[in-house]
Amino acid sequence: MGGDQAPDMVLKGIKIARTRHPHAHYLLHGNEAVLGPMVERDKTLAEVCDIRHAEGVVGNDEKPSQALRRGRDSSLWQAIQSVKEGEAAGMVSAGNTGAFMAMAKLSLRTLPGIDRPAIAAMMPTQRGDLVMLDLGANAECDADNLVQFAIMGEVFARTVLGLEKPTIGLLNIGTEDQKGTETLRQTSAILKTSSLPIRFHGFVEGDDIGKGTVDVVVTDGFTGNVALKAIEGTSKLYSAFIRGAFESSIVTRLGYLLVRSAVNKVRARVDPRRYNGAMFLGLNGIAVKSHGGTDPLGFANAVGVAVDLVSHGFNDTIKGEFMKVQRASGLDAKGLEEAANG
Amino acid sequence: MGGDQAPDMVLKGIKIARTRHPHAHYLLHGNEAVLGPMVERDKTLAEVCDIRHAEGVVGNDEKPSQALRRGRDSSLWQAIQSVKEGEAAGMVSAGNTGAFMAMAKLSLRTLPGIDRPAIAAMMPTQRGDLVMLDLGANAECDADNLVQFAIMGEVFARTVLGLEKPTIGLLNIGTEDQKGTETLRQTSAILKTSSLPIRFHGFVEGDDIGKGTVDVVVTDGFTGNVALKAIEGTSKLYSAFIRGAFESSIVTRLGYLLVRSAVNKVRARVDPRRYNGAMFLGLNGIAVKSHGGTDPLGFANAVGVAVDLVSHGFNDTIKGEFMKVQRASGLDAKGLEEAANG
Repeated sequence: MGGDQAPDMVLKGIKIARTRHPHAHYLLHGNEAVLGPMVERDKTLAEVCDIRHAEGVVGNDEKPSQALRRGRDSSLWQAIQSVKEGEAAGMVSAGNTGAFMAMAKLSLRTLPGIDRPAIAAMMPTQRGDLVMLDLGANAECDADNLVQFAIMGEVFARTVLGLEKPTIGLLNIGTEDQKGTETLRQTSAILKTSSLPIRFHGFVEGDDIGKGTVDVVVTDGFTGNVALKAIEGTSKLYSAFIRGAFESSIVTRLGYLLVRSAVNKVRARVDPRRYNGAMFLGLNGIAVKSHGGTDPLGFANAVGVAVDLVSHGFNDTIKGEFMKVQRASGLDAKGLEEAANG
Repeated sequence: MGGDQAPDMVLKGIKIARTRHPHAHYLLHGNEAVLGPMVERDKTLAEVCDIRHAEGVVGNDEKPSQALRRGRDSSLWQAIQSVKEGEAAGMVSAGNTGAFMAMAKLSLRTLPGIDRPAIAAMMPTQRGDLVMLDLGANAECDADNLVQFAIMGEVFARTVLGLEKPTIGLLNIGTEDQKGTETLRQTSAILKTSSLPIRFHGFVEGDDIGKGTVDVVVTDGFTGNVALKAIEGTSKLYSAFIRGAFESSIVTRLGYLLVRSAVNKVRARVDPRRYNGAMFLGLNGIAVKSHGGTDPLGFANAVGVAVDLVSHGFNDTIKGEFMKVQRASGLDAKGLEEAANG
């Protein structure tokens, strides 16, 4: 069981998740000698949890390759096995992201039609939430990868967010056709000219994320990761500045008492814990990554994301969609690219 | 004379800049039939402005290549010539960024030691302002480019921001050595092992921009542009949410009256107009790009950036630094890379 404050934070998170998802049952992978007494002490936990002992743990600083070599006795690997073998419907980990992704890829493998999985998360905008992917699984992506991410993002927005005809944008440094890299121009050409049944808006820029110009933002894992963290950093900067303003004098402290409840609503609206739970999309199994430094409420939200993906049958829908897409186009992604180029 | 509201916005901006920089004189490149009467009507403008007639104008939607082919009669090209020929000490344009950069590169050429110019701008952080580059001049960069950007950013932070020993960070998706792309790992190796007299902090992540972890953030133009705009979009999202909170009831409106002056200070602190004026660093001439959609105050700030670069002798310092760097290391950037790899 990984995460900066595990296992205490995780168990407290499960206590919150338990009341929200009364039918869920939890397999706790970790050191039984530590987890056992903690769970036994708490009847509400003991009712919904079973412990699966794991000898090892993947450290936060371990490289994915290290973790893969010696990590088969780890709680992370065993949790993934429980998904692979169907004992668990999905999993959540607050541990080492790179090792989690590498192990999940190796063990669960990708869905038919998907070459590489992507990390996706929801983000607040002026118009409601959007989903962005990839947020760091693949530092470099080709056009096929990006097209597959677009399709996965579309299915996510349709099934889990419940949007009827979600719009897809491709993150670039300008909206004109000639902007950006060759890979982006290729991807755009495929999404525009192919018969994929998705609403491709075209290129979007960094500020379109906050504006909510589209429902799905597609990008490579390097750009997505930098953008995501730049947005997080700006949120924190703003919060710090606004907090400083409220604390700057007796008059502003008084004023704060009057605006506090409304400002707290804003805080709740952009609370990083509300958006905790990055999904590994495209794998044969539901895998959700919680932020390592989150608190019990944030962890419970990550559990909620996994429950959502399971209860909406996300992976079955993806599989069905990819078959439909391939039937509709008569082409696979490779063929689409050739069609766009020729 | 370019920009969404030119020439009216530009002339109003000069009126503001005029009081801030009383020794500055302005050459207005544009249509004399339009500019002439506007300037003559206003004595304060007529005193500090001369008009240089230009027949053509580069459109906002023109590709750089188009503008280069047919743009030699344009106000943009002629303004660049006035810098090249030494009639102007520096220039500011609110017009087409791509055309501006392409023409400036072609005509002014890069400083000795610099292969490609970069777009740089200052940004607010929790710790004071930092400078980030490249923000869009080069969608793809190699390690030599990034090393040169690091040196230019360092000189900028030292001369214009007045920092004694500025720290440099390389934008990545993690801080560990093995993270990111091969180009970033190479760049980091050069900056770490070489004898460059700069304080290299190492890799930084997107949220380090808002934190102000370093004084200079170095990145390629694609990532920098996306990060910059993602930050702008998040600022706007936050402003909209906070404004909504203050307007949500009579009680919050009353509270807003008490916190207004403090909140306005925050607004001024992060005001995009305050940070208007992106610098094209690395050219034989001072060239500053104002946001096309800015207002007179923003344009005046862009003029201030150009005045700063001129009055600090930025380009002479860069030239001197590059000679020092090359003497100190006994190597040019290419050699540094080989040294790092071997």
